[in-house]
Order: sequence, then C-alpha cells, then structure tokens
Amino acid sequence: MSKIVIVGHKNPDTDSIISAICAQEFFTKVLGKESKAYRAGGINNETKFILEKFGVETPELISTIAEDDSVVLVDHNETSQVFDGLNYANVDCIIDHHKLSINTEKPIVCRMEPIGSTSSLIAKMFFEKNAEVSESLASLLLAGILSDTLNLMSPTTTEEDKELVAKLNAIAKLDIEEFVGEMFKAKSSLEGISIDELISLDYKVFEMGAHKVGIASWETTGPESVNAKKAEIMQALVAKKSSENLEHMFFMVVDILKQNCQLYLIGEQEKELAEKVFGGVIEDGMMFLPGVASRKKQIVPQLTEELSK
Amino acid sequence: MSKIVIVGHKNPDTDSIISAICAQEFFTKVLGKESKAYRAGGINNETKFILEKFGVETPELISTIAEDDSVVLVDHNETSQVFDGLNYANVDCIIDHHKLSINTEKPIVCRMEPIGSTSSLIAKMFFEKNAEVSESLASLLLAGILSDTLNLMSPTTTEEDKELVAKLNAIAKLDIEEFVGEMFKAKSSLEGISIDELISLDYKVFEMGAHKVGIASWETTGPESVNAKKAEIMQALVAKKSSENLEHMFFMVVDILKQNCQLYLIGEQEKELAEKVFGGVIEDGMMFLPGVASRKKQIVPQLTEELSK
Repeated sequence: MSKIVIVGHKNPDTDSIISAICAQEFFTKVLGKESKAYRAGGINNETKFILEKFGVETPELISTIAEDDSVVLVDHNETSQVFDGLNYANVDCIIDHHKLSINTEKPIVCRMEPIGSTSSLIAKMFFEKNAEVSESLASLLLAGILSDTLNLMSPTTTEEDKELVAKLNAIAKLDIEEFVGEMFKAKSSLEGISIDELISLDYKVFEMGAHKVGIASWETTGPESVNAKKAEIMQALVAKKSSENLEHMFFMVVDILKQNCQLYLIGEQEKELAEKVFGGVIEDGMMFLPGVASRKKQIVPQLTEELSK
Repeated sequence: MSKIVIVGHKNPDTDSIISAICAQEFFTKVLGKESKAYRAGGINNETKFILEKFGVETPELISTIAEDDSVVLVDHNETSQVFDGLNYANVDCIIDHHKLSINTEKPIVCRMEPIGSTSSLIAKMFFEKNAEVSESLASLLLAGILSDTLNLMSPTTTEEDKELVAKLNAIAKLDIEEFVGEMFKAKSSLEGISIDELISLDYKVFEMGAHKVGIASWETTGPESVNAKKAEIMQALVAKKSSENLEHMFFMVVDILKQNCQLYLIGEQEKELAEKVFGGVIEDGMMFLPGVASRKKQIVPQLTEELSK
C-alpha cells in the first residue's frame, strides 16, 4: 500500500526533524491523510535534547521508498540535500523556507516562504486551518523556530516568526530564556562528536555558477572549544574537499550568542575568494566575520554572486 | 519608488490575465500591499470577451521593470515563459499550478498546487483569509477557472475546483452553461487571428531531457475551422521549428466540447516520436487522440519521459 513519507534534509538539523514530526501531525490529523515522519541522517545533540525533553520519539531513518509512495520534503528542496535513492517523481509536496532549486515533471504542492524556519510555516498552516495545537505540538514548533532562528536573533528572522513564537508560547507556556539556554548548551556540546561529524552534521554542497562549493557550519555558544581543534578540522576539511571533488570548501563556526562567525579557509583558492567577497582579514587561516551568522543569507548568496560572474 | 508588479506568462491565456488581475486585488486589499497587474503579451479573443463582459480594463503590457521592483509571477515559473527582460532576482513570489522549473538565489514566497487553474489558487487565498469576495471578483475568478479547466472537463480539474466554482457562483450568480457557451464561442473565434498567431498564442517550449520541444495548442469548439487551414499551418510550423532551432515541434488542436485533439505532425521525427509515445494512427500528417485535451497532463509528461530515456 502506498504511504505518505515526510522527510527533512540529510545531515538533519533540529528544524528539519521537528518540521517533519509536526507536518506528520498536520497531514494525519488536519488533512486526514495517514503519513509518517522520517529522518535522513543522525540526530544532533540539540535535537536529541529537545525530543527527550518533550518525550517525543526520534523518527525512523529513511531507507528505500516504494514506487508509489508519496514524498513530502520539508526544510529542503535541492538535489544535494535529499536522501539517497529518492526519485523526484515521488515528491508531491514541498514545505520549505530555502531558495528554490528544483525541476519537477508534474505540478506539485509547494508552500514556501522567506521565513525563519520551516517550523514557522507548519505553525502557520495549523493556525490558518484553525486546527487544534496541543501543548506538546506548540512546544515542538517553538523549539524548531527558536533553534533555526537562533532565538529570533538570526538575520533570517521575520516579524512573523516573533508573532508565531508569542502565539505558540501562549499554549506551550515555556520559560523561553531558560529553554533556549538549555537548547544552546546541548547544541554546543561536542560530546560524542568526532571531527568528521563536526564538519558533516550541518554540511551542504551548493552549485554556484559552474562551481561546486561545500560549506560546513557549526553553531555554538562556545566557539573556542571548536577552534581548539583547528588543526585536525583543517586536515579533515582538506580531505573532504578532495574526496568530494569540490572547487571550494568552507567551514563556518558560528557564535550564536555573539552573532558572528569564524570562516575556516583551507587553501589559497578559498582565501582569495573570501577576501574578494567578504573583505575581512585572514589570520591563522581563518577570517573573522562580525555580524555574520547565517549561511543562507550572509554567505551563500554573496559567494554565488561572485562565482556566477 | 519600488512597486509590486504582478504578471502572467507570455502568450497569455485567460487564466494568466485573470489571475494577475485578481492577485492585484489580493495584494492590495487583503495584504495591504500596493501592487499592479500587467500582461506579458496580446490578449486572446476569449479573454477580450470576458474583460468586456465584466467591464474590467485590460492590464497594461509589461515593459521594463525597475531594479528594486518586486515581481509576482502568476500562472508560470519557467524561464521560457517569463516576459523578456525579467531578472529572476526581482521575483519575490510565485503563484502557479504548473510543474516547477526554477532556481532562485534567495528564498521566496511560493504557492503552488496541482489544481485546475491559478485562478482557483487565488480564490483559495481569498477564502482562507476570510476576505471579502465581491460579485465582480467572483465572476472573474469563475471565468478563470472555467476557462483553464475547460468548464471543469479538463483532466487537470480537481474536486476542489468544482467546490470553488460552486462557492464563487453563490456570489457571482452566473448562468454557467450560458456563460461557458459564450466564452467558448469567443475562444474559438478566428476573427483577426493570423496563422502565425494561431500557432503562437498558446505556445510553449519545453526542455525534455536534452531536447528542445515546441508545443503549440489551439482550443476550440470548432476544430474543422482550424483544420481547414492545415496546409498553411503546417508550413508555418516548419518555419517556426527551424527559426527557433527546435528538435521537435507539435501543434494540438483541442476540441474542448468533445475532449479530444488532433496532433499535427510536421516531419518524420515528430511522427516517429508520436507513434512511440501515443501509439495512434497517423492520417494526413495528423494523429487523432481521443480523450486528450491537456498539454500539461497528457502530452508533456509522456513526451518528457520518452525523451529523457
């Protein structure tokens, strides 16, 4: 029997897992369409903390899907981010807040907005339908929004995200300051994280003009604990760049409290490009970028513009 | 001052013009964002009839846009269908019911559904917001839906389209049978239509695998009046195929009452491909396809599948 499979991107972040779980509730309870949330990779420490805190089970890892399964992609649409083995012909719906980069062979349902998180969009969908939002659903959606917008501090945050947080917390009644503190602590934890995971857990490959560019990101409240492993990280980045046949490879360590980032520059190509695009000073193979916290908004469009010239 | 420009596709059909006009009302009155509807080409006889009947002004032809204008694309998203000179970086919103074929450099608002018309989607947006739908707005939206779904007979028609027609006509109070009769008569009129217009007014180019395929369509209640000009049409199609450097060129004359089509096959390549994909009998350079009335659903995916092998 065909089923509805809801899944976020590879190297899932919190928003990608939570929006899948909450979209399952929307499809099943609001639309009356039996569906199931999956994940497309390992769960990070922040997500683990949230699911444990709210007593929610971790979604199953997606493996193969049946030929007649209907796939709902949440929080992504690009080829490089979908789970291995996905046939795009199975995709019937996309709910996302990233740039569009997809060709379909048929019309599909597509709900996209330039909003802080996919969880924000799912929350809007519930409110638009005047559907019931339970305390546990509100808590999850809140966590998704606060995670992806870095507590509404990221430049991707919109007024609507702030309104949704207020609306959801009228139901969830969380002490947001305390909750965010715990969440960020979990996010920053390097416990059980290998160097390879550090540069792979939030890693995306972008086609920029004719160039293939890998950008890994690590968001933390304690960048120094990451930077202490710089030599090993640099080595791992060089290896990953070569094994994946990339033209450029970047790693950004984002300080989510101070809203800045250190951009790791592993070679001459990356250094030249970063100097041209961001104009910062390079010290010990890193460029400090004050105010830069969003790969999507402050790194990718700028690099894409330069590499598309 | 930057403005919001709403525009449908080149070679505009009725849905493309009406959805732009009604989206302008949605943006301006419901969202409180001053905006203006434009058209990206000449108005066909059907659209002319509708605008005259409801006393609505024909939107201005789009020319250039300013660097900071915000563009809303309705009823299309593909490069080959946007107005000349559009910079995709200006596109902030897409409302459409076609397959997705777009890359953006930033997240945008995207509202797509596999529904019968873009007018259906705009109607949904009004109803979702519980916004006021005047008699004249309801009449226009009805005309858009009935035109694009060929009076709810096209295979692209959904249950939702039927519900929307009922809901809108509770406001518009049209005699639908009579209205559709007049509309189809206007649509079928060849008055003032040259052979070149006949094959260009509803013409789209598709990338299918590595192939560039042009497909013109003419919907009519009287296919014989078109077929009477077959020799001239064939000649014009051959010339268009060559001047546009296409690998295949098709022309479908759709009988909107009987829901079938004659596919004009101008050369050996087209004949071979049509035989392989549709399996019909070729007579006098045409293949009769009973039950086939939708380019989007019954021609394009089938050709794309074969040409992508």
